[in-house]
Amino acid sequence: MSIAVTVWNEFRHEKESEEIAAIYPDGIHGAIAAGLQSGDFTVRSATLDEPEHGLTEDVLAGTDVLIWWGHKAHREVSDEIVLRVQRRVLDGMGLVVLHSGHHSKVFKTLMGTTCNLKWREANDKERLWVVNPSHPIADGIGEYIELPEEEMYGEFFDIPQPDDLVFVSWFTGGEVFRSGCCYQRGRGKIFYFRPGHETYPTYHNPEVQRVIANSVKWAAPVDGPVPNFGLNGPNAPLEQLPPR
Amino acid sequence: MSIAVTVWNEFRHEKESEEIAAIYPDGIHGAIAAGLQSGDFTVRSATLDEPEHGLTEDVLAGTDVLIWWGHKAHREVSDEIVLRVQRRVLDGMGLVVLHSGHHSKVFKTLMGTTCNLKWREANDKERLWVVNPSHPIADGIGEYIELPEEEMYGEFFDIPQPDDLVFVSWFTGGEVFRSGCCYQRGRGKIFYFRPGHETYPTYHNPEVQRVIANSVKWAAPVDGPVPNFGLNGPNAPLEQLPPR
Amino acid sequence: MSIAVTVWNEFRHEKESEEIAAIYPDGIHGAIAAGLQSGDFTVRSATLDEPEHGLTEDVLAGTDVLIWWGHKAHREVSDEIVLRVQRRVLDGMGLVVLHSGHHSKVFKTLMGTTCNLKWREANDKERLWVVNPSHPIADGIGEYIELPEEEMYGEFFDIPQPDDLVFVSWFTGGEVFRSGCCYQRGRGKIFYFRPGHETYPTYHNPEVQRVIANSVKWAAPVDGPVPNFGLNGPNAPLEQLPPR
Amino acid sequence: MSIAVTVWNEFRHEKESEEIAAIYPDGIHGAIAAGLQSGDFTVRSATLDEPEHGLTEDVLAGTDVLIWWGHKAHREVSDEIVLRVQRRVLDGMGLVVLHSGHHSKVFKTLMGTTCNLKWREANDKERLWVVNPSHPIADGIGEYIELPEEEMYGEFFDIPQPDDLVFVSWFTGGEVFRSGCCYQRGRGKIFYFRPGHETYPTYHNPEVQRVIANSVKWAAPVDGPVPNFGLNGPNAPLEQLPPR
Repeated sequence: MSIAVTVWNEFRHEKESEEIAAIYPDGIHGAIAAGLQSGDFTVRSATLDEPEHGLTEDVLAGTDVLIWWGHKAHREVSDEIVLRVQRRVLDGMGLVVLHSGHHSKVFKTLMGTTCNLKWREANDKERLWVVNPSHPIADGIGEYIELPEEEMYGEFFDIPQPDDLVFVSWFTGGEVFRSGCCYQRGRGKIFYFRPGHETYPTYHNPEVQRVIANSVKWAAPVDGPVPNFGLNGPNAPLEQLPPR
Repeated sequence: MSIAVTVWNEFRHEKESEEIAAIYPDGIHGAIAAGLQSGDFTVRSATLDEPEHGLTEDVLAGTDVLIWWGHKAHREVSDEIVLRVQRRVLDGMGLVVLHSGHHSKVFKTLMGTTCNLKWREANDKERLWVVNPSHPIADGIGEYIELPEEEMYGEFFDIPQPDDLVFVSWFTGGEVFRSGCCYQRGRGKIFYFRPGHETYPTYHNPEVQRVIANSVKWAAPVDGPVPNFGLNGPNAPLEQLPPR
Repeated sequence: MSIAVTVWNEFRHEKESEEIAAIYPDGIHGAIAAGLQSGDFTVRSATLDEPEHGLTEDVLAGTDVLIWWGHKAHREVSDEIVLRVQRRVLDGMGLVVLHSGHHSKVFKTLMGTTCNLKWREANDKERLWVVNPSHPIADGIGEYIELPEEEMYGEFFDIPQPDDLVFVSWFTGGEVFRSGCCYQRGRGKIFYFRPGHETYPTYHNPEVQRVIANSVKWAAPVDGPVPNFGLNGPNAPLEQLPPR
Repeated sequence: MSIAVTVWNEFRHEKESEEIAAIYPDGIHGAIAAGLQSGDFTVRSATLDEPEHGLTEDVLAGTDVLIWWGHKAHREVSDEIVLRVQRRVLDGMGLVVLHSGHHSKVFKTLMGTTCNLKWREANDKERLWVVNPSHPIADGIGEYIELPEEEMYGEFFDIPQPDDLVFVSWFTGGEVFRSGCCYQRGRGKIFYFRPGHETYPTYHNPEVQRVIANSVKWAAPVDGPVPNFGLNGPNAPLEQLPPR
């Protein structure tokens, strides 16, 4: 069954910088969507400047997995939409947060931490090493993915310890980074994936595209139980409960 | 070296109900503080109706571990103080969240989830089984702690998967609960401990007191690194970085 | 693509006890295989008394997921076959260990612990509560599975902390148990699932069958990297390494 | 209360190589013991060529934390002693495994995996980054420890996912490594710490010594419950159990 994917992109850099527009003529969301063409995905996009940032209740209700790319305008995302996305994740929607999305309100709200990190734009080479070769997100990937030039992100990365750590990055300049991190939150699953600075053609890289496609499949909702919260049986002597 | 503990208590039930005041004549915070007397702790309290809820910048700066009990007035805790506590935890202060504190803004903000659960006031018996006998929070505890009567809390408990799970509770009525949960967040450590409904004398129980004392020691700050976030080296060709 | 499943059964109880043979006329492996009929699985069985316990190199090479049920004859499983199974798991084969298989050499070798636990045959009722509703192994399952009569297994269960904990069991007699536990080991995945004492018709229960089918899908190999171990580049000055 | 530490060293390299003897004139165990002098530790050593490898039942019974360094003679360690150490760890003794001890029988038995990795002796620089600044093993350590020359160890490192990951290493040659890994096993705790090739003066490094001392304190036994395994109550109708 096809997985309904919504690619959310801030979509500002591409309109303001010729250099970036040249790398991503269809927007970063366009490149990410193109990378999902070979799988059984139904892909649409949503962007910051649409009404409700393109994330209406209907759109989210029809989304299995939301991909998130943002950078310079995190503060412009309304708190109401952040809360809406959080609720939808806890209710089962998958979430794939890319690169500078680490500082998005959505990710920080779901993590409970600052999600701060080190960074440097100095054309570091990045190697993303697979540290869990049994994980479905590593399907079809070699021992590492090498990106000849990327922005550096370095530890300490202020996130909760991942449930599963899939990738650890090496950078020329001497830093490491937990660059592929899995989380369960409520009925939903979250994957953070590091690469993708706007000045590099990273989302055209077939291995990066493969990881994103794998993570969408991994994060797609399952038909797990919908918990009943609140009062469980009468507030009354145990003798009045149904037989156990 | 003495650990500076601040016991935060909503302190409403004890003033409004004679039944509860009879169980906790010095307030729930008083009973928790009394349970810490035998260790090397310096204990003070803070309550909701004090200015800034008793949690000024100075108080928090001087607190190694904050214990949190709240129930009916979670919404009255100001967002500013919640943010202040969150920042202080991420900067190293330990946090021990008790019982109905699961629904406190502080805990929900740090977890990123609803922290919802099932509950019932029906005099269930509770057994808290130790599932990690190597953990310092289980020090001095037997295979389980039995509480003859307590409020029931049941799964699904909407929390992130704990870094370490120390206790799992059994209830007469047929429910289980992850009742002792450890988390790392930033430079800080968090422990959630389930027991302690206001209508039961749970905080006078020596084993419960022992777990709380153990968790305070475990959550006390360590002198780990203070991360530098942000730009790491010049945004310039790698050749201009210091030699690696 | 069909998943190749081998159901390994000790297959002694069914031949020695009329009571058990009446519950499992086709053997426990037969009941487990029958429970997998509705999915896209190719199922064969292997038993203790076959040559090489039915687990030749060829059989294991052609197995995606191995299911393991044993009880009274763990010691009769040869160390050579145990090592063979371990290697195959680390190389990617999934392993689903059921009930008394907790004491199998295969499971103990892969866990590194005694895998000891408490037990009692007293017709306890068991409720297996889902504590991770986002997990694919909980797909199609309600908030809990109730088994009217089962052998009790109780904590402390001497296993490594699971990577993911999916089920926690409640028993009438006052015990709890981590009854659905996920592990990554090498390129392989392992799921331990508690229910299934030979004197109860547990493997005819549709929800138990669903969990086993789900776990087989979850544990099936992925095409992750085959690591190169050993020397990486020349033992020589770094200048002689390929350019980085 | 003083922690009783036994430093186990293979103690072959130092006797066979003048170069190594010059770095570790008192043996690697001597350097490790010297690094523990400033804390409240009682330190003795044990070596491969002593009877029972120096690890008699009495020695282990009197050991709170065992430190393990071995390299070229792993196979000479008797299986009986390996089993003895495993049992003692599961019963509460802490274990700190250093560097090439990753391939010791003791570590592999407790992990259940091959513990294989990549390696290279090419004078790589190593940076061990702290990825959990709240952990007691990071106490007193800066953002990273830099070792100007060390043997390289690279991923994939075939270990179970750590319960807590404290350090991740960067190497000049392009590799990363999970170099500080915490595990709970039974009533015991295990820490694996990567650095320490015999041709480098690593164990004279004050930061490395600090990490080892921290890990000994962390791994020291706690007075957690001693589980009762086996039959729990009569195998009889539940009505005959003690009242619950």
